[in-house]
Amino acid sequence: MRTQLAKRLGCEVPIFAFSHCRDVIVEVSKAGGFGVLGASTFSPEQLEQELRWIDDHVGGRPYGVDVLIPANYDKEAEASLGELERLIPDAQRQFLDGLLEQAGVPPLPDDERARVRQELAEGRGGMTPDGARRLLAVALQHPGVKLVVSALGAPPADVVALLREKGVMIGALCGKVSHAVRQREVGVEVIIAQGTEAGGHTGDIATLVLVPQVVEACPDIPVLAAGGITRGSQIAACLALGAEGVWCGSIWLGTRESELTPFEKDAIFAAKAEDAVRRRARTGKPVRMLRSTLSEAWEKPGAPPYLPTPLQGILYNEAHARVVRAGRRDLYSFPVGQAVGTMNEETSVREVMLRMQTEYLAATERLAGLWEE
Amino acid sequence: MRTQLAKRLGCEVPIFAFSHCRDVIVEVSKAGGFGVLGASTFSPEQLEQELRWIDDHVGGRPYGVDVLIPANYDKEAEASLGELERLIPDAQRQFLDGLLEQAGVPPLPDDERARVRQELAEGRGGMTPDGARRLLAVALQHPGVKLVVSALGAPPADVVALLREKGVMIGALCGKVSHAVRQREVGVEVIIAQGTEAGGHTGDIATLVLVPQVVEACPDIPVLAAGGITRGSQIAACLALGAEGVWCGSIWLGTRESELTPFEKDAIFAAKAEDAVRRRARTGKPVRMLRSTLSEAWEKPGAPPYLPTPLQGILYNEAHARVVRAGRRDLYSFPVGQAVGTMNEETSVREVMLRMQTEYLAATERLAGLWEE
Repeated sequence: MRTQLAKRLGCEVPIFAFSHCRDVIVEVSKAGGFGVLGASTFSPEQLEQELRWIDDHVGGRPYGVDVLIPANYDKEAEASLGELERLIPDAQRQFLDGLLEQAGVPPLPDDERARVRQELAEGRGGMTPDGARRLLAVALQHPGVKLVVSALGAPPADVVALLREKGVMIGALCGKVSHAVRQREVGVEVIIAQGTEAGGHTGDIATLVLVPQVVEACPDIPVLAAGGITRGSQIAACLALGAEGVWCGSIWLGTRESELTPFEKDAIFAAKAEDAVRRRARTGKPVRMLRSTLSEAWEKPGAPPYLPTPLQGILYNEAHARVVRAGRRDLYSFPVGQAVGTMNEETSVREVMLRMQTEYLAATERLAGLWEE
Repeated sequence: MRTQLAKRLGCEVPIFAFSHCRDVIVEVSKAGGFGVLGASTFSPEQLEQELRWIDDHVGGRPYGVDVLIPANYDKEAEASLGELERLIPDAQRQFLDGLLEQAGVPPLPDDERARVRQELAEGRGGMTPDGARRLLAVALQHPGVKLVVSALGAPPADVVALLREKGVMIGALCGKVSHAVRQREVGVEVIIAQGTEAGGHTGDIATLVLVPQVVEACPDIPVLAAGGITRGSQIAACLALGAEGVWCGSIWLGTRESELTPFEKDAIFAAKAEDAVRRRARTGKPVRMLRSTLSEAWEKPGAPPYLPTPLQGILYNEAHARVVRAGRRDLYSFPVGQAVGTMNEETSVREVMLRMQTEYLAATERLAGLWEE
């Protein structure tokens, strides 16, 4: 399954792994795939540290970095956390506090609360136009970085020009054909067509429908299929649709190398496909995540309206920390795709990579065999 | 792509076409596929007439019939239309009437209203346990019928026994793995795994995720992939996932042979994938259908709650007839899947069948070629 894109990027198989965890990135790239580090919540100093660690461990294999590059100057994104917190209305704050109190989830101790708040404030830095460019500057100091992906769609012209000059490929995620067309127009070189079954922020259109339409709309650049993919048969399916590779996120959460705690992994292993629901409780925009009593409470009649981004996320952040600290599976949620239904026990990145390739082989042989039936 | 299932049913390619239109059924089966007539809204006399017409035109090719067979006795389904209409609260009735009045859509003339109501009353007959069995008895008089599909999930034991005795295969639609497991247990012989991207009543899980999980859960019976499929590359993809064929509905709506009016076809040709939304306005349960100002009005804050099935459908039915009669595209909706984005002009069933096979060939050749890269 070595596609043109895999050759161009210098990996063996076009399996792209999105993860916030450097160990996953290293293991995927070492196993012949292509790890892409989700970097937007790191400070420039943290990112430098992560990339240096990856360089030290990846044995010269290529990898990528995923940042959120806002196309337009967004004044709100520059606001301080304190300013934003003051914009959260009492109704929503009381609704969420009330839910947790009723469920017997204690508030955070003051020091823990300060730490969670500090992490959020630092994490927001990378989502401003300037912050994203600082992260990009760090990434470009590392010659192992062969691909930069914009998770916020069409990147600004100066970023495209800079990456082209440096010879680093630029990719972008899309959830609709019109996004892909726009991204191609501004110079994006790899489109990641992400279906509704994906974890995290996701649109409405399913991978099986989206991928062939994006391939048709952008015939001259490679398209990766994303959303719902954990098996080699699905990789064969997506290449049959015209994709040049696949982009997977959820599957790595259940590996030994993943950053999740055992509590979080157990919640994921217990979930079925239908437990990964698209809800606005986490950020104000639809995020596919584990269903929880908290995510569902906000959907019920009588719940207050969701807040706009970033206020909903700021409000949710502390509640999430309280739930994790209390070890409350019933209230716990995490962004994950419908593929969660196929993740039932801890594995390793290496096992996943080998299993996917074995399944891919079986699927393509099955398809070839149908000619003779 | 002649799978074991295609051989067993006596068709050349495992492309299953769901349609309410006998002309589509005949053309698909004559082109080597397998037409399945959606029969649940026919009276036994109408169904007899349709099947006789199909027999007269299909040249001995096999075809199927799709009925809704309620597993349990449902008292409400036996209620008369008049009784049900009296259960519709004023709030919902006034909301919908108000919307149409505000939009300047005139009420139906009395005779037209009587006709629409009469059709609805007759159509509801096939959805009762007795009515469904009467339709089944008609279907079994036609030796061309080689497959009966239950669109309401696991069929009752007597129906399974009857079909097995007659040597007619029995299929059922599912939207979750647990449905498929239950259906297999009661004796269903073909599972149609239908993803969220499908038109009509549909679940949450996408085809790409659902199909491999159902194949794994039911390894000893054939699985058809349904939802979002209009292209041969998608057929290759679904066979790679382990399906024994595909089940398509939306694509036939845009053919010359389809029962839709030019007004309805134009609305479908103009729609993009993202215009096929999952809403409860039509039946009270989620139906994927064209977005319209009417479907969206019911989602807004201040709208009354959706009514339970069948009341919501009874209420919606007359409003729909008013919208179609007034030729109001902005308010018009129709059950259709996300594949609507690929349907842009009128074609013929024969063209669709040939195009799909050509694209299938290209996709499998592409996949085979990747071994050599």
